[in-house]
Amino acid sequence: MSSKTIIMFSGDLDKAMASLIIANGAAAMGDEVTMFFTFWGLNVLRKAKKIKVKKEFMENMFGFMMPRGADKLALSKMNFGGAGTAMMKSIMKKKNVSSLPALLESAQAMGVKMIACTMSMDVMGIKAEELIDGVELAGVATYLGEAENSNVNLFI
Amino acid sequence: MSSKTIIMFSGDLDKAMASLIIANGAAAMGDEVTMFFTFWGLNVLRKAKKIKVKKEFMENMFGFMMPRGADKLALSKMNFGGAGTAMMKSIMKKKNVSSLPALLESAQAMGVKMIACTMSMDVMGIKAEELIDGVELAGVATYLGEAENSNVNLFI
Amino acid sequence: MSSKTIIMFSGDLDKAMASLIIANGAAAMGDEVTMFFTFWGLNVLRKAKKIKVKKEFMENMFGFMMPRGADKLALSKMNFGGAGTAMMKSIMKKKNVSSLPALLESAQAMGVKMIACTMSMDVMGIKAEELIDGVELAGVATYLGEAENSNVNLFI
Repeated sequence: MSSKTIIMFSGDLDKAMASLIIANGAAAMGDEVTMFFTFWGLNVLRKAKKIKVKKEFMENMFGFMMPRGADKLALSKMNFGGAGTAMMKSIMKKKNVSSLPALLESAQAMGVKMIACTMSMDVMGIKAEELIDGVELAGVATYLGEAENSNVNLFI
Repeated sequence: MSSKTIIMFSGDLDKAMASLIIANGAAAMGDEVTMFFTFWGLNVLRKAKKIKVKKEFMENMFGFMMPRGADKLALSKMNFGGAGTAMMKSIMKKKNVSSLPALLESAQAMGVKMIACTMSMDVMGIKAEELIDGVELAGVATYLGEAENSNVNLFI
Repeated sequence: MSSKTIIMFSGDLDKAMASLIIANGAAAMGDEVTMFFTFWGLNVLRKAKKIKVKKEFMENMFGFMMPRGADKLALSKMNFGGAGTAMMKSIMKKKNVSSLPALLESAQAMGVKMIACTMSMDVMGIKAEELIDGVELAGVATYLGEAENSNVNLFI
């Protein structure tokens, strides 16, 4: 058994898909997998519904402009104001590829450790209550500890 | 001798250049190199000329909108509707930097293993006949197997 | 003690922050860290003030259009013509997160090795005098040598 650590920096649908397909695959093969969500990647972990939390003005603005959760992410290319993303999702459904929320759920069910970067949360004004259940909060030292013990490290 | 595995997720000219320069360098130093092409990265492997294959409507649309092969890719920044990319290519030629198609060819000649991700091919409607020769088809489990034996793993 | 090697390909503020936070964290924990700056990542190392060097026409154009140094970089998302980047910087200041120039300085002070990719410098027309002090110049073979001895390798 070996370990894999993935930094999920991007909040793009396609990159989140890639990263969760790798995480699910590795977990299914018995590996210990840690995903460290930072910057735009935090959006993957946001709950779909608006959570009432106290925020400053700029935090509210950021929170309002960023996608709320795995089901709201857009493609990094060919988004075309949402049309490309909708098309891609419809193709994936037709081809029986799991959706991003489903991949996230199965990764958690298989024990993939999900960590939200506290410094990014602070900067982007994202509160713990706004994240899906089962997410740990930690900083770069924790990431480095996990990476140290992993034989595959990716930044996505 | 050691192994390197690169996931080529991006279809941008600059990132594909970086990834193939690393792959060629490592192969020249005697390393085993595997490149796993997925999502937009599949476009790097497309043949330049249109291949007649049966496609569904949406597959055709995707295929039409995406660049057909290594010589058609654009810069991730400063593309300016193609002018920046053309400028960059002309500079590279003047400075005797190999073009992307040349790097791809030399990588293959040095035995770099090129794998196209079957799940991405399915979603994007890219058929095996549309890819350059010498490309293997496989999925995430194959990638994970290669990554397991590599001491350098990159996601580009 | 172990080693970490980061390829800094991107010239985006957010990605450069992520990469330097990791580099500083690892250096603080006693690791040997090497950062290899290539393509747009070279902009992170540019001096803020214009340096008089002889350049060809196209080199001048590239140099003019690219951000001059760590303090001029923009966010990869939500830049909004600079407004988003300014907002992010003001938030970071308020939250006592180090600025990118400060992170760069502290990384150098802790002995993080900074290497500028000579091939990219050549293509983009960036001269050694235009880079901040303490930067080494080298090519892909040097990168591969560093990566070989590192247990964490990232492409950012």
